[in-house]
Amino acid sequence: MKTLVIYTYPNHESLNYEFLQKVIKGSNENPNIKELQVLDLYEEKFDPLLVFNEHKRRRDMYRDSRIEKYRTQITWADKIVFVYPIWWGRPPAMLMGYIDQLFAANFAYRDKKGLLPEGLLKGKSVVCVSTMKGPTKYPLLWLNNAHKILMKRALFSFVGIKKVKFFEFGNMESLNGKQTKKLEKVYLYFKRVNH
Amino acid sequence: MKTLVIYTYPNHESLNYEFLQKVIKGSNENPNIKELQVLDLYEEKFDPLLVFNEHKRRRDMYRDSRIEKYRTQITWADKIVFVYPIWWGRPPAMLMGYIDQLFAANFAYRDKKGLLPEGLLKGKSVVCVSTMKGPTKYPLLWLNNAHKILMKRALFSFVGIKKVKFFEFGNMESLNGKQTKKLEKVYLYFKRVNH
Repeated sequence: MKTLVIYTYPNHESLNYEFLQKVIKGSNENPNIKELQVLDLYEEKFDPLLVFNEHKRRRDMYRDSRIEKYRTQITWADKIVFVYPIWWGRPPAMLMGYIDQLFAANFAYRDKKGLLPEGLLKGKSVVCVSTMKGPTKYPLLWLNNAHKILMKRALFSFVGIKKVKFFEFGNMESLNGKQTKKLEKVYLYFKRVNH
Repeated sequence: MKTLVIYTYPNHESLNYEFLQKVIKGSNENPNIKELQVLDLYEEKFDPLLVFNEHKRRRDMYRDSRIEKYRTQITWADKIVFVYPIWWGRPPAMLMGYIDQLFAANFAYRDKKGLLPEGLLKGKSVVCVSTMKGPTKYPLLWLNNAHKILMKRALFSFVGIKKVKFFEFGNMESLNGKQTKKLEKVYLYFKRVNH
């Protein structure tokens, strides 16, 4: 499995960076994962703004040369891993902006007759590793699971990706948040995953 | 009512811009709305990225001088109106980035003992005018109302804003999407609103 890891956090002095390291370490020890690429959106200075106007049509976004290297990464990957914090119930603006631009019509999906489009990223799998300050059950009990619904139904399912695994870790700023145990859990998952 | 309108769309040749114009026209004809400010995030070249690191602490964001003028606008406003498209079930990255930075601890809310913080934007009201390509009922039937839940519960309620009104218009790229009727609806709402 060729694996692309997309890291979205403003700096490296963070628990999110520790999770990234566990994803990398586990993947490197996993015989099923032959190749790994890491995209650090902040370090890369990725421009999150989707722009279109009379000179730059939205319908041409799927071949925008400015972001061709990122499309190439997605095409290359069998598995895409996202590591990010939950801010206001959803991923940071940076990751939303990556999605706004990369998951373009005629690259990630193709409109056809009927309600749903044809997903063009079929066969790939996704893992989302996310951290929250609030309690683990807060999204489920208070937010109708909005984060997972948005990622899984509004996005991945739309582009044909059916296999989506979530780690949604709460209490990550608490002293008793079991951070070490959760880091280990992520490490072991990536060391063993085979699909 | 002092009213702040925040417009998030990449250009002005758009239905979103027509909705903005209706918000402005209605507000200008409404004797309850004495003053109006418009913030066009793309035109303003607002930088959507929340950055924090060893030199710039997240806890100091509430007094970041780079975005002081935007905090002043929020403090000034009795009513905040957001005009934006729905992309992938939620607002564009640009608006998410405005929120990531402006709704900072000790400006928009203050942590205290217990699960919920103290909202510091109490007494203000919000209107969200959003447009979708998909059907009007898609968010409710397929996405657990994720967009409204994220805006209302995860964000506005958290900072003390209880009055939130949504216009969530679907089929906005269809020939028979009743765009004229919906533009008129928004115009009349802003012409008459008194709270």
